[in-house]
Parts: sequence; C-alpha cells; structure tokens
Amino acid sequence: MSNKIPVGVLGATGAVGQKFVKLLEGHPWFELVELAASDRSAGKTYAEATSWRQYTRIPENIRGLTVKTCEPGLDCRLVFSGLDASVAGEVEEGFARAGYVVVTNSRNHRMDEDVPLLVPEINSEHLGLIRIQRERRGWSGAIVTNPNCSTAGLVMALAPIERAFGIRRLVVTTMQSLSGAGYPGPSAIDMLGNVVPFIPGEEEKLETEPLKILGRLEGGRIRFAEFGVSAHTNRVSVEDGHTECVSLEMEKKASVDEVARALAGFTSIPQELNLPSAPERPIIVRQERDRPQPRYDRDEGGGMSAVVGRLRACPVFDIRFLVLSHNTVRGAAGGAILNAEIMKARGHLD
Amino acid sequence: MSNKIPVGVLGATGAVGQKFVKLLEGHPWFELVELAASDRSAGKTYAEATSWRQYTRIPENIRGLTVKTCEPGLDCRLVFSGLDASVAGEVEEGFARAGYVVVTNSRNHRMDEDVPLLVPEINSEHLGLIRIQRERRGWSGAIVTNPNCSTAGLVMALAPIERAFGIRRLVVTTMQSLSGAGYPGPSAIDMLGNVVPFIPGEEEKLETEPLKILGRLEGGRIRFAEFGVSAHTNRVSVEDGHTECVSLEMEKKASVDEVARALAGFTSIPQELNLPSAPERPIIVRQERDRPQPRYDRDEGGGMSAVVGRLRACPVFDIRFLVLSHNTVRGAAGGAILNAEIMKARGHLD
Amino acid sequence: MSNKIPVGVLGATGAVGQKFVKLLEGHPWFELVELAASDRSAGKTYAEATSWRQYTRIPENIRGLTVKTCEPGLDCRLVFSGLDASVAGEVEEGFARAGYVVVTNSRNHRMDEDVPLLVPEINSEHLGLIRIQRERRGWSGAIVTNPNCSTAGLVMALAPIERAFGIRRLVVTTMQSLSGAGYPGPSAIDMLGNVVPFIPGEEEKLETEPLKILGRLEGGRIRFAEFGVSAHTNRVSVEDGHTECVSLEMEKKASVDEVARALAGFTSIPQELNLPSAPERPIIVRQERDRPQPRYDRDEGGGMSAVVGRLRACPVFDIRFLVLSHNTVRGAAGGAILNAEIMKARGHLD
Amino acid sequence: MSNKIPVGVLGATGAVGQKFVKLLEGHPWFELVELAASDRSAGKTYAEATSWRQYTRIPENIRGLTVKTCEPGLDCRLVFSGLDASVAGEVEEGFARAGYVVVTNSRNHRMDEDVPLLVPEINSEHLGLIRIQRERRGWSGAIVTNPNCSTAGLVMALAPIERAFGIRRLVVTTMQSLSGAGYPGPSAIDMLGNVVPFIPGEEEKLETEPLKILGRLEGGRIRFAEFGVSAHTNRVSVEDGHTECVSLEMEKKASVDEVARALAGFTSIPQELNLPSAPERPIIVRQERDRPQPRYDRDEGGGMSAVVGRLRACPVFDIRFLVLSHNTVRGAAGGAILNAEIMKARGHLD
Repeated sequence: MSNKIPVGVLGATGAVGQKFVKLLEGHPWFELVELAASDRSAGKTYAEATSWRQYTRIPENIRGLTVKTCEPGLDCRLVFSGLDASVAGEVEEGFARAGYVVVTNSRNHRMDEDVPLLVPEINSEHLGLIRIQRERRGWSGAIVTNPNCSTAGLVMALAPIERAFGIRRLVVTTMQSLSGAGYPGPSAIDMLGNVVPFIPGEEEKLETEPLKILGRLEGGRIRFAEFGVSAHTNRVSVEDGHTECVSLEMEKKASVDEVARALAGFTSIPQELNLPSAPERPIIVRQERDRPQPRYDRDEGGGMSAVVGRLRACPVFDIRFLVLSHNTVRGAAGGAILNAEIMKARGHLD
Repeated sequence: MSNKIPVGVLGATGAVGQKFVKLLEGHPWFELVELAASDRSAGKTYAEATSWRQYTRIPENIRGLTVKTCEPGLDCRLVFSGLDASVAGEVEEGFARAGYVVVTNSRNHRMDEDVPLLVPEINSEHLGLIRIQRERRGWSGAIVTNPNCSTAGLVMALAPIERAFGIRRLVVTTMQSLSGAGYPGPSAIDMLGNVVPFIPGEEEKLETEPLKILGRLEGGRIRFAEFGVSAHTNRVSVEDGHTECVSLEMEKKASVDEVARALAGFTSIPQELNLPSAPERPIIVRQERDRPQPRYDRDEGGGMSAVVGRLRACPVFDIRFLVLSHNTVRGAAGGAILNAEIMKARGHLD
Repeated sequence: MSNKIPVGVLGATGAVGQKFVKLLEGHPWFELVELAASDRSAGKTYAEATSWRQYTRIPENIRGLTVKTCEPGLDCRLVFSGLDASVAGEVEEGFARAGYVVVTNSRNHRMDEDVPLLVPEINSEHLGLIRIQRERRGWSGAIVTNPNCSTAGLVMALAPIERAFGIRRLVVTTMQSLSGAGYPGPSAIDMLGNVVPFIPGEEEKLETEPLKILGRLEGGRIRFAEFGVSAHTNRVSVEDGHTECVSLEMEKKASVDEVARALAGFTSIPQELNLPSAPERPIIVRQERDRPQPRYDRDEGGGMSAVVGRLRACPVFDIRFLVLSHNTVRGAAGGAILNAEIMKARGHLD
Repeated sequence: MSNKIPVGVLGATGAVGQKFVKLLEGHPWFELVELAASDRSAGKTYAEATSWRQYTRIPENIRGLTVKTCEPGLDCRLVFSGLDASVAGEVEEGFARAGYVVVTNSRNHRMDEDVPLLVPEINSEHLGLIRIQRERRGWSGAIVTNPNCSTAGLVMALAPIERAFGIRRLVVTTMQSLSGAGYPGPSAIDMLGNVVPFIPGEEEKLETEPLKILGRLEGGRIRFAEFGVSAHTNRVSVEDGHTECVSLEMEKKASVDEVARALAGFTSIPQELNLPSAPERPIIVRQERDRPQPRYDRDEGGGMSAVVGRLRACPVFDIRFLVLSHNTVRGAAGGAILNAEIMKARGHLD
C-alpha cells in the first residue's frame, strides 16, 4: 500500500486533465486514484473515455480506471481541476463545500477575494486566505487557483523586478501557442501562415491577474499591486509555449545588468523546500541574441522555468525583454501541481 | 512605339527585383526595358537568370530580355533598385552620379540627410531634398528611398495621429512574415512551429525611420519628429504581411473614436493625384474584433493599404491598435513605384 | 434587366457555397439571385449569415440578399448545391422533383445509376442520363453531380491516357489540402508539423468515381471502366490544392514521350465550345523536376487546369507522375459551374 | 577510468553529428572522446564550433572538448561518421586504411560490393563482408554503412514480409520531414503551406538499397533481392519522421491478418542480444484508423521502432500499409550506433 496522498482529477479527459494525468505519473507525493469527467465519459475506462494526445502513452495503472462523474464521492481529499470554465464554477464549489481541497487551473474563482491566485515562487503567503475562505463560506475544503497561462510566465519575470525595483507600468505583447486554446482549438485553415490577433478574455486576465499575484496579504485581504498593464494577445502557429515581449517602467532606476542579476538570481521557497515540481532555477536568463524560442526553450526546468532573453534598455520605458514559458506545464497542470506541493509542505493538506 | 517612360530594375533577379518586374507589368506610365543584376546573371535572358517565385508567370515581354550588369549604360533614366544592401550603396551612387534617378528599396541611403525617405501619402514635400542632394553631390541624377518594410506600415498609421494629436511615444511589437527576409531566408527547420524573436538591424530601423519620415523639411534639412519608439521585432511563419501591435501616447488627449476617424478618413496627395499605385484608401480601419489578419487582409488596396484594427484605449498610454501591411508591396517594390509616380507627377522625372 | 439565367445556391453560407458565390460574380451567363441555407441563416442578409472566408470581399450585389431556407420556391430554375452530405440527399431530390436543375458538388447522388457524374472535358455524353433520370423518377428537374475533389484532378490526367493507351491499374497516393475538409476542418493542433494519413471515405471515392466518369454510356446505362485503383489518402498542411502521386499500368505500351504528348495535347468539348469556366488547357505538363507544387501551381487555368509533372517511367508499372489540382475550384464549385455551362451549351437548361 | 570503448564522431558539428553526440551521451558501451569536423571548426571547443540544435543541452563533458580535423590520429579505434557526402568518400577510406572502424551514415560507400549496408534486425550476416573488404582493400580498419533515412523505415516493414511471403514488387510514396535534408535544409518560404514533390537522389536510393539490405550473402557477395520498387518521394512540413505509403505484391498469397502477425511478431538478433539501442519491438503495428502520425509516433522505441498502420488489402496488389520511422534516429545516427553495437557483440570491434 502506497503512502502517497491519493488525488483525483476533475475534467480528466480534456487537454488540461490529460496533462495532470501525465505529470502525476510517478509523482513522489501524490497518487492518482480518481478520474472524473462529464456524464458522457462516466462509466468508461479512462482509455476508452479519453482521446489521448500526449506524446507518452497513458500510464499503465491509469488506463483501466473507471471514469466517474464530477461529484463529491471521490475517494481522495485533494482534487486537481482541469474543468472547462463553463462548468468549473459550481462543480468546484460543490467539492470544496464537501470538504475537498480543489487545486484548479480554471479561471472561475481566480479573482474571488478569498481565493488564493497562487504562484509558489511569488506569493505563497497568500495561502493565508484559505482560513478566511473557510470561515466566510463555511467550507471544510478549499479552492486554490493558479493563473492563466499567459500570466504565469509574465509574473515570474515581473516578481523579482517588482521586489527589487518596483514596477510602474508595462506593455506586453504575446505570441501564444495553439495548445493554450484547448482541444480542438483553432482551425488549421485559420492558422496556416497566419496570425490571429485576438484571444477572447485573454487581455483582461493578463491585465488584472498579475496585480493580485504580486499583491500583499494585509488584514485578511489582498492589497493588489498598483502598476498598469497594457496587453496585446495573439495566437500563432506554435505547438506549446507562450512568448511575450515586455517593455517596462520601474519605480527605481536600475541598469540592465542589475535587472539581469535580479532575474537570474531569483530563487524562492519552492526551491528551498525542494518541492518535487519546482525547477532548480525559476528564471533562466539567456544571453543569445535570438533566444528564447518556443520550440527550443519551452521545456527548460521540465517546463516549469520561465526563460528570459533579449534583456535590454527600452527607449520609451526603462527595460525590455522577452519571456517564454510552457503554457500547459507552468501555465496549467504543472503550476497547479506545484501549488498542491507547497500546500502539502505548508501543512494545508493535513 | 510606347509613350511610356522607359525604366530599369537593378537587382532584377532577386526577391524584390522580381516584385518590381511583376508590379511594373502593364503599368500605365512606366515601361520596363532594362534588367540588371549580378555578373553571374548578366548575358542570360531574364527567364534563364531568375528563379521566378511569383504566383503569376514572368511577363511575356520580359522573359527574353537580356540581363545586364549593374552599371550605368542602361537605356533609361529611371531605375528601380532592389539591390542587396551589401552592394547597393556604391552602385546606386554610381547611377545617380551618371544622371539616373534611382528609386530604391535598399536601406543604404535612407538616413542620408540629403536623401528623401519617402512615403508619398506622408511627406511628399521631402522631395525638396533632391535639389539639395544634387547641389551637394554634384549629381545630375538622384537617389530617393522608401522605408524598411516594418516601418512602411507603421508610419502609415502614425501619420494621421501625429498630424491631428501629436505623438509622444509608443511601443511596437511586430510579427513579421518570411518574405521580409528575402530568399531563401530562414530555414524551414527553424520556423516550423516556432517564433524567432530577433531580426538583425530591424528594431533600429523601426526606431529611427519613422522620425525622419514624419519630420519636417525646414531650411533644406529634415527636422526629425521627436517621439520615442520602442520596437520588439519577431519573425513568424506567415508568407507575406507584417502585423504590428502598437501602444501609443499622444500629445493631445483624444478619444478612440476621434482617432478612428482620423485614421479612416486619411487621404492624401497620391489619392488626389490619382496616382496609378495609390490605394483609394491608404488606411482601412476594420471593426471586427479579430482583424486584420495577414492571410486575409494583406492585399487590401492591392497590397498598398495599411489595415488598422482593434483600435481601443490603452491602460498605460492612450490608445492601442494593430496595423498590418504587405511587406513586399507597400513595404518594398510597390512603395518604390508609388515614389516614382509622385516624382513623375511633381515633375522630378522631367 | 439582365438577360442572364437566374441561379441560386443551396448551402450558400458554407465553404463550398461561398466559393460558388465568389466564382459566380460577374459570370457571363448566370446571375446569382437566390441564396438558401439552414434555418439558422434564413431571414438574415447574406453578409450577416455567412462568416466569409474568401480573399476578396462579398460581391456588393450579394451582401444584402436575404437568405432563404433550402426549399423549392426559389425564383430561378438552376440551383448549385454546396450542401453538406448529411442533408443534401433529400433536399436535392426535393428540388429536382419540383422542377429545378440541381448541379451539385455533394456526394450523395454521385453513384446513382441514373445521375451523371460529370467532368465536361471527359464524359459530356453522360448528360444523356438526364432523360432516363427524369423518366424513371418522374421529375421535371434533374440532378447532375461532379466528382470528389481528389477524383477531379486524377481523372483529368487519366482520361487522355485511358483514351490513347488504356489503363490496367494504378496506385495513387494523395497529399490533400486543409480546405478539402470544409470549415473548420482539422484542428491546427493536429496538423502543425504533422501528416494525418487518413481521410474518412476518401479512398473509396477515389477507387470508384473514376470508373464511372471514364465509363461509357451504353443503352441508357454507364458501363464502368474496368481498371483497378489503389488509393492512399493523406491530409497535409496546405491551404488549397491536392497533390497526387500516381504509378500506372497501361493496356498498350507507350513511351513517356507519347504519354506526355497525349496529356499536353488534351483538349475537349468545353474548350471547343469556349465555355466561360473552361481552361484553355485542361492539362498543363510541367518539365521542371520539382513541379507542380500546390502553392505555386494550383491556380493554373484559374484553378480549373490539372497540372501534371515528373512524368517518368515506373519500374513496377509503366509510367508515373504527379498531378495537382485546385480542390475547391476544379474539385468543387468551379467544376459544378462548368457542368452547368456545358448543360446550357447542350440545351439542357432550356 | 572508464571501461567503455572510446569513440569519435566525424562531422561532429553537423546535423547528424549532433545527433551522434546526443545519442552517445550516457551510452553504456561507448564513450565519446574525439570530435572531428571541418578545418573551420578545428581548434575550437565543441560548444564554440557547433550551432547546437537539439532539445537537450550539449552534454557537459563534451562542451569543452577540442574539435580536431577529420584525419587519422584520433585517439580511438571506432569512429561514427556524419560527414557530408561531398567529403565522406575519401575521408572515410583514409580512416579505414589507417585502421579505424568507420560506422557511417553517409551514402558514399553504401552500394560498394564489399561494404555492408547494415540493419542489424535484418542482415547482420552481411558483416561477413568485412573480412572480404579488408582482404580486397588491404585495410586493417573497415567501413560499415546504414541505409538512407527513407530506406531505413521501409526495409524494417519489408523484412518480415519478404521472409514469410516473398515480395514481388511495391509502390512506395513518401512524405519526408525537413530534418532529412540536413541543416539549414529547405527555405521556410518554400515549405510553408506547400509540398515539394522531389528530393534529389532519394528515389534512386529507395529503389536500390532495400534490394541489397534484403539480399543474401553468398560466396562472399551479396545476392540482391529481386523485387521491383517504384518510389515517389516528397518533402512536407514535418519536423522529424518519414511517413511512407506502401502498396505491395507478395510471392505467396497471405491474408492481412497473417501479414499483421508477421510484422507485429517480428523480433531479431539485436533484441535477443539486448543491444542497448535495440527497441524492444522493431515494428509496432497500430490498429487505429489514422495512425501512425509523425508528430505522435516517431519516438516509439526511442525513435528506433518502425510504426506500421492502416494495414489493409490492396485492390491492385495484395496488401498496403503506412510505415513511419524517425529519420534522424533509426534513419541516421541511431541506426549507426546500433550497427556498432552489433559489431561489438559479434566481435568485430575486438
């Protein structure tokens, strides 16, 4: 009998759900024992219910598990949610009410004032909201969220700059991969040799989530960071990995070298605690003039590192750079698993 | 015998040269009679010398023309240059010295203080530099340049804003097509499912050329415009058409609607003169939330219009928008031909 | 008042329907006056009802036409059908019964024994089936079909070989474009950097339709041609244009040159009649070692020519070659319009 | 001190050379100690000399190795060659003459009658040619080759069919990846949304190499297999992995199921010997109607398995199927390393 913590995945047959299944294979702390999905999938084995699109096979011990419906009754206390936003809101609340800890990638509760929007390298103290969430809502469980995939990479680069120099405002333009849109996502007819310069709801997330993530927990509330963000989001023909071009104005003046050192030297609690999914270096700074590139660099740190490059002075603000991160690992399932790991390390799963 | 003005193309076998050949087919004012290229091509027929990559066939009357070397002696007074920057500088000077009017897409002389960097809708008065250029250099010919392909679309959108409201500064991030790199350009291995976030020399051009183009001719010199530009340039897997995301601060406050009207209503001297290559509308403003897109919109106005979309308020500056333009038409051969047309209309070819 | 024949399009808002609208713009014989689509679209203007994806704008006189439901009552006698196969069968029969001539691209009736599967350059005598169709079914109207998009290009190349030398058997492997799957068609996630080696139902069509098309009308029935076809069909990341590699055994021996002459010299009734959509040369034979290529050659003859290349001896059979044709022009809407043109010329629309 | 066999790589900075470096990292039998490349690279560290394009970093112990020229004098007896065909011929002979065992991916000596064209699962007895090669040429070393990348996958599927049922003839059409062309390979401008239906020299290789590989060593010579092959080779926008559609006539009739069993059950000497690079199953037979696909299936068996799918009856011959294999692993560096492994196991490196 395993000593690992039994966990479930809600929305297990979808794109994010599959990534949870893949990343949890062989996890040293968590053992995947429950899979839940829509009524259409319930009752089937996982192999039957899912149209598997990962490059490795379905883990052998998962293939034959019977998929259940997304209702409390799963035999575990921790569930990861990759549910579609159209259903995640109520389902996740139902699980939290029933005593489950829901670590979710869905957007529905991210901006709720009593719900942590967690990036363990940045704001693990926001886990203090869990106590407040439980008091206010009368829940024995809890909901903890991770940011939108384009936010996840950006905030990683912003955090050390904000801490060291303060951020006044920034303009960010993204070139986001196809996998960020879920499956089937965009039509190949639309994407071939094209750029689609609009992603519904994405700019709003990129302009608000970083302010919460980089905010301070004071008196039981998050005091949002107060810099301005202007986001331009685009979809390009890339399989995985979101590339973002950032021009940024700081509160205090600092040289490009000082910023580079703040970024490259960044390390935080997940690294100190040696959490299983924590990359050795949360931020990797590349010196080549043409890197990072999504196809070559997205898998740095197992897909959990943000890769910064082309750090240089900005003629309009202070500095500018590129940041690349893996949208389905750091920006989705991997980020959520790291959230659960720090919760375990901090005693929130006891 | 044709009454048209005989013209030649320098660098006629290259990517830009082929575009000149294609766009000059059936031109109402100009007749292509001379083709010049490298020594390797000289002496061959054009059909033999060029590896033709346009979607229409080589014009019948051009196929059999003998390619000459790039030296004065061509039987025409106006030459279009699509020469590579590695040779364009001296060759073009030699032609101008010998009395030719050189209308060039090459970058070498763009920032020379006595050479017009011309966009006929914006700064046709800069043609006044020709007189100064001739005096200073003792030339009977002249050199006139058009901007870099990524600048060409940007300045079209900037001009009416600058005129109506003034520009203080802007951040521009580009997603540029493969054809902007010439042929063969990037390796398919590098581009498939990837973004290359660096184009040598491109950001410098995008940060300086607009200031000259939007500058004023005063006392025989261009007084540059004085706004700040921060450029991030990227190569993406698009055949033709550069897409640019712009966040912009204006001198005077203006609403999104006022800016939209300034853009959509923009028309200028080439339109008044009804120049053959002038698009009816230099700027087309799209209202759809996801347009322009390079594959669908690059051919607006025969590739000579700039297409603006997603015009909206900017949380950090004042306004933001997308601008798309066809990099090998407006941004190269088409822009140069329009330059020659306005020169003809203004008597500079007499 | 126009003297043109008024025509309608069934399924006008879909991918094939849009192509009909585009190709009928300015047609010298036909005037598009009726648009019909699903109940969801009915009552809207065409501009509202369709999500237009052609590179030219919706024709001005069509934008404001009100879309009707797909039921008899349209004010024209000739209708083109781009209906989805899920509904085309019954709808088209209803129109034919009500006296309409239905020229359809849908597959439903292609193999009906009294319905012509028409390629005007090859089997215009099959129009003789119309009389039999009307007698058997008691219709005053009629249904005439064109072949599947991958068949359309193949049979064009087969016809002159069959006529001159006879065909014993062939192996054909296709690389088919995205547009052949309709819109939205395959997911960009599936197609990026990939080949999908299966297209539902496609191989069956490619193995049977050519036999009917190249068959002889004898005693009121088509006697099918009797050669064997083995088809391998693949989807690749190409916008338009199906490329097919063919190895072929002939009844009579013939040299590569003899076959090349039979192909290049092929011309037929549509060319003699100078039908508006008939390409000057139905088959273009390219000599370059690496042509045809879909991006460069699909538009030959306005998309109505089949382009053959790499004609050479086959070590296993007799000859082998490539054939490329435009799947949404010759292989869909353009083929249907040419069918209607020959019907008009032959008096079948009187 | 390592007990491993020291090895070198010729052409270490090129595309195939890099793959050798990558695949040899941590190899249980071989230790990479010598890197040789062109004069331009010689004298630099490997990290300086190579433009590394693998997804993992340069192995730490290799980064600082000094690159040497491609001349005998390397401190090892076994060298892998990824040299370009323009120089491989003489260089490899020079090494063999000087006593080196040259295991090469280059094409130059593949068809030499005393040189094994080796696929260890198929024709390890061809290693008997080494003795003859040494006698004839007076060499103490030897040259052993592996097949062209498109041949490598094909012969794997052919071998069990040939052994069980005999092959009379076949038609094969390939869709080959970009990496098969080396770096930089085709222009992105040429490949975007296109198929290039010609690969210089490729069809000739695919039509002759299988006959040697499947031949028998008799009396010191290879008696070639005697079936006919007709190859159509195409380049498509795929990163890695060649997909081949095969229609095949057998000597003895056999059902699809019998062929499937012969393929799926195929195992050979490398599997018995448990060679480090030998895949557990040389051939994997997929049942899904749309697999294998290059992006999803090329890495089966670490890139060393051939993946067969869509096995079905052929209306023209007997059977038809798809075969996919990884062109830079099984089809290049991985195949060569497996060759060296079987040579070691058979005592040819003693």
